[in-house]
Formats: sequence, structure tokens, C-alpha cells
Amino acid sequence: MAATHTDKAFEQDLRNLREKLLAMGAKVETLIAQSTKALTDRDSSLAEQVVGADREVNRLEVDIDDLCRRILALRQPAASDLRLITTALKIVTDLERIGDLAVNIAERAMDLNQVPPLAPYYVDTPKLAELAQQQVKKALDAFVSGDAAKAEDVLKGDDLLDALFLKIFNELLAYMMEDSRNIRRATALMFIAKHLERIGDHALNVAEMVIYMVRGKDVRHPRSRDLE
Amino acid sequence: MAATHTDKAFEQDLRNLREKLLAMGAKVETLIAQSTKALTDRDSSLAEQVVGADREVNRLEVDIDDLCRRILALRQPAASDLRLITTALKIVTDLERIGDLAVNIAERAMDLNQVPPLAPYYVDTPKLAELAQQQVKKALDAFVSGDAAKAEDVLKGDDLLDALFLKIFNELLAYMMEDSRNIRRATALMFIAKHLERIGDHALNVAEMVIYMVRGKDVRHPRSRDLE
Repeated sequence: MAATHTDKAFEQDLRNLREKLLAMGAKVETLIAQSTKALTDRDSSLAEQVVGADREVNRLEVDIDDLCRRILALRQPAASDLRLITTALKIVTDLERIGDLAVNIAERAMDLNQVPPLAPYYVDTPKLAELAQQQVKKALDAFVSGDAAKAEDVLKGDDLLDALFLKIFNELLAYMMEDSRNIRRATALMFIAKHLERIGDHALNVAEMVIYMVRGKDVRHPRSRDLE
Repeated sequence: MAATHTDKAFEQDLRNLREKLLAMGAKVETLIAQSTKALTDRDSSLAEQVVGADREVNRLEVDIDDLCRRILALRQPAASDLRLITTALKIVTDLERIGDLAVNIAERAMDLNQVPPLAPYYVDTPKLAELAQQQVKKALDAFVSGDAAKAEDVLKGDDLLDALFLKIFNELLAYMMEDSRNIRRATALMFIAKHLERIGDHALNVAEMVIYMVRGKDVRHPRSRDLE
């Protein structure tokens, strides 16, 4: 009976962990969307909201880290359970960095909102943000459901994201060459696009770890992550 | 006697872990130096070496992850030992990303080596690379020796690194505005500087985790990490 009780408590711990990770994932997805909206809608108060929300993301990271340590100390999981917890410890770091990148985007949006817009060059940014957001969601879902096939989708999706980043990068470069008054703003937009591409890289990392967790096969870093 | 034997084996595991982490740290430090040298000396074969060495860094990551899991499963460490192992799991991810960033620098160096140099604008890049490298070394030393004061030095050092990045960024911006023929190369140099600044961010992350590990006090993210 004691064993059953322990099993149940352990199951509850894991459920708790998954829920917390999904909540943190939902939070950073929102921040990606909001930081991009702050740019396209020139909404600096929304940007400030994103900057302020960073604290919450950091608190979630500390919470989940502590929960993982508690599970390790109390339940002493082995085999696949151990792999799950140690992977969660790593994934939470990626999620936190995604939050940081959304903050960086929001900060740049605030700068850009002070000057006249380079409007046509915002067009693809929301698309890139949406792709990045989807990749994060899919990678985290793959972790929570232990679904390696879904994680492989994320690996494929990264090519799309890289291609769109490259397109934006080249357009901005051309725009800078056309008129030197565009340089400062176009550079800021380049960095925003780069931040979004890097959010995609974090999703890729999570997906690679999920595949390793499920299959025990390491697919980490079979290729360069930086296309541009 | 059995307990003593276990203690000794555990001590050996921890020594092994520290050694592997230091070896991985030394490896990525070398890659930072080499990728920057590939740029300033216009040495594309050195750049290719960096790209090739990424595999080795990835192998080290998988090795250390496995070692951490083995220690958790076999020794079931508690309290500060548990915190040490879970921190190592996170640190190794930062080290691996630093390796990736060195590869990104090397790839951009190869591109730049195809075109005439923007020589004066290389000047501060090796300095930035050296600072970044020192930060990585100091952060890892702080982890291995469990030295929170040394980790705090890394926190302070990050301001220096950010300031130098900002200086390079503004100089390159001015250079782009001066002559549109500089734009493509200056943009590449901006991204290289950004990669180095981000390496510094990884060192900062490691340092923050060390302080948390030693003092149990969370200093993560008291401020924005992206100054530019």
C-alpha cells in the first residue's frame, strides 16, 4: 500500500511539473506575441508590460527548478523518469531565455516607437514571430506528451523559420543600401528578426532534447543553427 | 566501511564531473579565441577548424549529461550535492551554446574573408572576444570551486562587456552611414560582436546559477541583459 501511495504522489509530482512547464510555455508565447504587437502597433505601453512580465517568467523558472530538485530528492526516480526530470531542468532554461529575448524585442520596439516607422519592413516580422511561437508551443507539447514525432516536426519547421529570417535580413540590407537614413531603424529590425530566429533555435533545442529523452538517440546539433 | 567506499566513489564522480566541465570550458574558450583569430587574420582554414570542432563540444555535452544522470541514479545525492549536479546539467547547456556561437562567428569570418577587409573595425573585436573568454573562464572556475565571490566578479564584468559591445555597435553604425559599400561587412561585424556579447550573457547565467547554488539566494535576472 505504501508503494502505491508513493507512486500516486510521484504521478502527482510529474503532473504538477508538466502543468507548470505548460504554464511557463504559455506565458513566454504570450510575450513573443505581445512584444511583436508592441512593434507593429507602435504600442510602447504593451512593450513595457512585456519588460515587466520578465520577473514572472524568472519566478516560474526558479519554481520549476525547485520542484525538479524536490522530486529528485524525495522520489529518487530512475531510468525514463530520471531522464524526464533532468530534461525538464534544461528545458526551463530555454523557456526563460525565450522570455529574455521577448524582452529584448520589446525594448527595441520602444526605441523604434520614438521615430517614424519603416512600415513595409514590419510585414514579415509578425509572420516570423508567429512561426517562432508555434515552434515553441510544438516543442513543449512534444515534451509534455513524450511525442518524438512531434519533436521531429519542430526540426523541420526550423528551416522555414531560418528561410524567412534570411529573407527579412536581405530585404533590410537592401533598404539600408537604398537610403542611409534607414540604417539605424533597419539595424534594429534586423536584431528583432535575429531574436525571433533565436527563439526558434531554443524551440529546436527543446525538440532535440525531447527526441533524446524518448528515443535515447542523440540528434542534437546535426547541422549549423545559424543560417543567416 | 561500505559507506566510506560509497563516499569515495561519490567524491571520485564529482571530481570527474568537475574535470569534464573544465575540459569543456577550456575547449569552448579556445573556440572563441580561434574564431576571432580566423576573422582578424583572415584565416578561413582556422575558421573551418572551429566549425569542425563543434562536434567535439556536442559530444562533451552528451557525456557530461550522462555522467550527471548516472550520479543522480547511483548516488542519490541530497542537499548541496544535488544542487551541484542539477546546476552542472544547466551549465553544460550554456557551454554548448557558447560553442555554437563560436561556430557562428567562424562562419561569418569565412564570409568576410571573401571580400576586402574593414580593417580598422576589427580592432575592438579581439578585445571583446578576450573579455568574453575571461568571463566564461571565471564563471566556470567559480562553479568548480564553489566560489560565490568570484561569480559576483562575473556579474560586474558583464557591464564592461556590454559597454564595449555598444561602442563597437555605434562605430559600425557610423561607418555604415558614411559609405553604403560598408553596410554588408559592417552588418556581419555587428552580428559577430553580438555573438560575443551573448557569450558574455551565458557566462553571466552560469555565474548567477553559481551564486544560487552556493548561497541559495537567487540573483538571476536582476536587470536586463541586452544593453544595445
